[in-house]
This record gives sequence, structure tokens and C-alpha cells, in this order.
Amino acid sequence: MYKYDYLFNFTRNIFMKMGCSKEDSTIIAEVFLAAELRGHASHGMIRIKDYFELWKAKRINTAPNIKIVYESPSTAVVDGDNAVGMVAARRSMEIAIEKAKIAGTGWVATRHSNHFGIAGYYSMMALKNDMIGICLTNANPLVAPTFSISRMMGTNPIAVAIPAMNQPPFVADFATTPVARGKLAVAEKKGEKVPFGFIQDKDGLPSDEPAILKYGGSMLTLGGDREHGSHKGFCLSSIVDIFSAVFSGANFGPFVPPSVAYLPVLDKTVGQGTGHFFGAMRIDAFQPAAEFKAKMDEWIETFRSAKPAKGEARVLIPGDPEREAEERIMKEGIKLVPAIKDDLVAIAGEMGIAFE
Amino acid sequence: MYKYDYLFNFTRNIFMKMGCSKEDSTIIAEVFLAAELRGHASHGMIRIKDYFELWKAKRINTAPNIKIVYESPSTAVVDGDNAVGMVAARRSMEIAIEKAKIAGTGWVATRHSNHFGIAGYYSMMALKNDMIGICLTNANPLVAPTFSISRMMGTNPIAVAIPAMNQPPFVADFATTPVARGKLAVAEKKGEKVPFGFIQDKDGLPSDEPAILKYGGSMLTLGGDREHGSHKGFCLSSIVDIFSAVFSGANFGPFVPPSVAYLPVLDKTVGQGTGHFFGAMRIDAFQPAAEFKAKMDEWIETFRSAKPAKGEARVLIPGDPEREAEERIMKEGIKLVPAIKDDLVAIAGEMGIAFE
Repeated sequence: MYKYDYLFNFTRNIFMKMGCSKEDSTIIAEVFLAAELRGHASHGMIRIKDYFELWKAKRINTAPNIKIVYESPSTAVVDGDNAVGMVAARRSMEIAIEKAKIAGTGWVATRHSNHFGIAGYYSMMALKNDMIGICLTNANPLVAPTFSISRMMGTNPIAVAIPAMNQPPFVADFATTPVARGKLAVAEKKGEKVPFGFIQDKDGLPSDEPAILKYGGSMLTLGGDREHGSHKGFCLSSIVDIFSAVFSGANFGPFVPPSVAYLPVLDKTVGQGTGHFFGAMRIDAFQPAAEFKAKMDEWIETFRSAKPAKGEARVLIPGDPEREAEERIMKEGIKLVPAIKDDLVAIAGEMGIAFE
Repeated sequence: MYKYDYLFNFTRNIFMKMGCSKEDSTIIAEVFLAAELRGHASHGMIRIKDYFELWKAKRINTAPNIKIVYESPSTAVVDGDNAVGMVAARRSMEIAIEKAKIAGTGWVATRHSNHFGIAGYYSMMALKNDMIGICLTNANPLVAPTFSISRMMGTNPIAVAIPAMNQPPFVADFATTPVARGKLAVAEKKGEKVPFGFIQDKDGLPSDEPAILKYGGSMLTLGGDREHGSHKGFCLSSIVDIFSAVFSGANFGPFVPPSVAYLPVLDKTVGQGTGHFFGAMRIDAFQPAAEFKAKMDEWIETFRSAKPAKGEARVLIPGDPEREAEERIMKEGIKLVPAIKDDLVAIAGEMGIAFE
């Protein structure tokens, strides 16, 4: 078990050694650790290796000049200058919040960025401003459209954070696939199979082998098969891709630059880097914030009191599992599976930093 | 087979007989017929009976005063004054478009409305303004949250329309359940079973009987079961409900007034009527419209060229099936199943209008 501070300082040091400023490295470490605390290890320390390899391949800019390149009262397009994703994303969400303060809502499309960790982190930045926060991103092309075997899309997550009064906030943060790509990576590291309905092999046949993605297999969209609505998952994933990349001028779909070493870097590009999309909606652009937040309490209490199905203890509100994980993990410490620890020890060795 | 004009005129006459203005009745008929043409008979003529019964029960206002009750540069809350949903929704989307012309984007939450037909119709209003259109609505509580047997939510659809240059527009319009509620109603009218994974009985056991909703059963969220991501469908459905109802001051979740006769009208209300949410995003608030639309052509062409899985003819872009249905049905005519025709004959008789 690792203490939060130990992994936070280690992560910050790694990125400072790569050339990121202390301020940027702090943001990056905060997002990686937020993933661990919220129980999404799939987006936490396991991803440091991906960034380390991008850095060694000189594929990220650790001293970026992030700027607005196009705007209207409620919108902006941000050029991330090939920054570490967390740095470009945090700045972009700050701009969305500033826009919302004046125009009621703020919407920012960001290009030329990289993998940014958990989408929920950025959506939650809106909460303390009495705003709703939205965050979308495209990602490594590993998901096939309905009826296809071509890997055309990422797991393209959607995060929406909504403040309440006395209840904890509503925070939804989910991939538009049945399972996040990182959860397959974790299963693979543990040597486990996954349920059918998540992935298919290179010919489109069902598979339970998480390593199949390294052999031409692909992930399925939310819904699984056409009969059960995989085309709706495809719609969602497409919308996330278009908002993140076509609005911003980033690479869309199959052209998103891979953040994992087993995917080839394509010669063809259709834009710059990875794309994200951020939204901030001021509650009192719709109604007095106190009224809204009291009503959200009522919404949350209503749904929390839904009658559980036989064998189920209770109904969860989006954000409950992550908040409970955070409380538990902050107390108990963060567990790293051996393969991830080994990766971090090796990286620490190369960078001349202590890690054990 | 019915000709478009015959059903259009019949529908307009029915609503004019109920007391709607000619202009409003024209909008209503246009939306009902758009559902039929786009192959979503589940939202077409079958729903006229629901409205007829609401009207007989004096539960809708056919001469509404629809107005903005709260606003900011990019947002508004609209009170639909208990209008027929199509009338309140069309006016709300017009307001979103007007806001977007000035602020870059426009976002309207609408309360005190009713069932509005197909969400895609309103999202597509944005296209001719070189805007992206978004439309959400809550609906009859028939869907259970993950882990629950309580009917707390509607099938809460999401519609997003995005313009292209030479390609037809991208139009996604889908329920956040594996299947739309109306499709269960159509299966029931035809006496057919439905696949497992759509619905559960009152105890939470799997069912293939579409009539189960009349006996305490409930619909499942997109994903079907927890392992395959039903909690993501629950997140989506919740977001639609909160945007549509908590932002606007409409009834949320289990308190949405039923538009079907077999659900009870509750004594408790937590707002006014049904809620919708509309968005309009001016493309050139992000980049020159011509560049964006050319890039959308490239996006669509890229995804259309995805390699089909074995046994599949081609990959479909959101909007393709509906557009192809529209071309075919406009030529061949609109087919009504006997039970729906019988309902319409009965309604026509009561209203003193010819229908055969």
C-alpha cells in the first residue's frame, strides 16, 4: 500500500524531470492521483509509462504555449501546443468557466492535446463555481462502429458534474463502451479474462481475451450488439469525437495519435493531436442557484430511495462509488499491482528518482 | 398504404378540432408525420390517441401562452403553458437558435410541456442555420435505475444534428434505453415478443413480453445489465432528466405526468408538466462554417468506409437509416397497422372527421 503523498510527489518529480514546470507537474500529479483515489486505477499510475514513452519518443511538449485561437461570447477553440493532456485540459476548462461567468455558458473545444487522465476531474472543476461541468475527449482508436471490424474510435468518455445542496454532487464519468480501455489493460496485467460483450477479434468474433487488442481485435460500443443498442453507443462515441476533434481541429476517429506503444503512429493526420471538449453552465443562468441545488437534493433523495431488485443492497447515484472509494483509499492507501510497480521502478531508475 | 398528404391533413384537422390554431396544428402534424417518414412509427400516428385522451381529460392547453421566464445571453427557461409538446418544443428551439446567433450558443430548458414526438425534428431545425442542434426530453416513468425495480425514468432520448457539406447531415436520435418505449407498444399491437435484455418484470426477472409494463414491469437502461454498462445508460438517462426538468422547473423522474392512459396521474408534483432541453451551437463560433462542414464530409466518408464485419453489407452513419426510410416511405406511402387504424377511425368518428 502506498500513501497518497508518496505517489503524488513521485509523479510530480517524474514530470518535472521530463521538463514540465512545477505548477504543471502538480496539476498532472493531482489528476493521476484523483484517478487512483476514485477507484479508476485504469487511468492512474498505469498511464505514467505511456507518458514516459511519449516523452522518450519526443512526442510531447513539456513547455507548451497554450492559447485561444478562435472565440465568441460563449465559445473558444484552444490550441494545446502538444502539452501533457492534463495541462491543456485544465486550462481549457478554466476558460469555459470564465466564459460562463459572462455569457451564462462556456464551451471550449481543444486541439493538439494528449491523453488527459480522468474526464471527471475537469467536469468537477465547475462545481465550486455553482456551475454544471461537462468534459468529453476522443482517444486511441480501438473501438469498432456497429456492423464493422475497423478500429475507428476511442472509448470516448463523457463526464457531467452537477452540484447539489446537502447531498454530494452528481458526477457521471463513463466511457461510451461497456468498459474503459484501461480496465482491459488492468485485466491483462492481472492475467484475467473479461466477460463476452466487451471485445471482438480481428474477424468480428466474440472474445474474452483482453490482449486481443494487440492482435487486431476491437472493442464494442455501449449496447454490445445491434439488437441491444450498440448503434446508440456508436452515436454517443461519434458525438464525442466530432465535438472534441471536428470542432477543435484535432485528429478525429482513426487518426487520433496513439497514447499506447502497440498502436502505430499513422503518417496521415487530419488535424492536430488529440481533441477534447469542455462545457460550463452557470446554474443561475437558468434559475437561482439555491433553488436548483435544493431541487437536486430532492432528485438525488428520490433516486436513492428506489426499491432495490432482489439481491441488491441499494441503488447508487452517479458519483457514489467514486466518492466512497476516495474515502476508503485515502485512509487505507493506494495499491499498485506488481506489473505496474515494476514499470514505475524501471522508469524511476531511468530518471534517477527513488521509487520502491 | 396512406399518402403523406392524407395523414398530414387528417392530423392537422384533429388538432384544429381540439382547438389548436392552424399554425400550431400544422407544426404538430409535421412532427407526427416526420416520425412516420423517418421510420419511427413508434412516435407517429400511434400517439394521436394518447393526445386525444389527454384532451378529453382536459389535461392539455390548446391555446397556450408560451413565454421566456428566465434568461442570460446564452440561456433561457421557457414555460410551455401546458401546450401540445410539439408547439412548446418548436418555439423553444427557435429561441435557442436566436440566442446562438448572438452568443455563439443557445440553451433552453422548457417546463410545463407534454410529449413532443421525435426529438430529432427539433435538433434538425438548427441545420439550415449552420448550427449543431441538440434536443433532450424526459418522458413517462417506465425505466428502472440499475439495481432497482422502481420505475423512475423515461426512455429519455438524446438527439444531435450536425451539418456537413456534400454529405447528408449526421443526425443521431436515440432513447437512452436499448429500445424506445413506443417500439414496445408497436410490438404489443402486433402481438409480438421482444428480445430479452429490454425489460424486466415487477420482481426484476427478465421478460420478453412487451405488455409487462402494464403489470408493474420496467424497462432497462442502455447497456442492459450492470456488467455490460447499464449504469452508463442510467447516467445518460439521469443527465437528460436533470437537464430537462431540474433546469426548467418541470417534473423530474417518477413525477413526469404520464402521456399513456395505463399509468396513474400522481397527486404529488415536483414541478410543472414534462421538461425538455434544447441546444443550438453556431458552427462559426468555433471555426469558419465551410471548413467545419468540409471536415464533417471527411469524417462521414471515413466512417462510411469502415470495413464491414462478416455478413454485414455496410456501416451506417447516424441519420442514414432514417433518411433512406424517408425517401422510400414518401414514395411507397405510410403503412398503419390495423390496431392503429382502428384507433384513428374511432377518434375520427368522435371528432366528426372522415378517416378510412
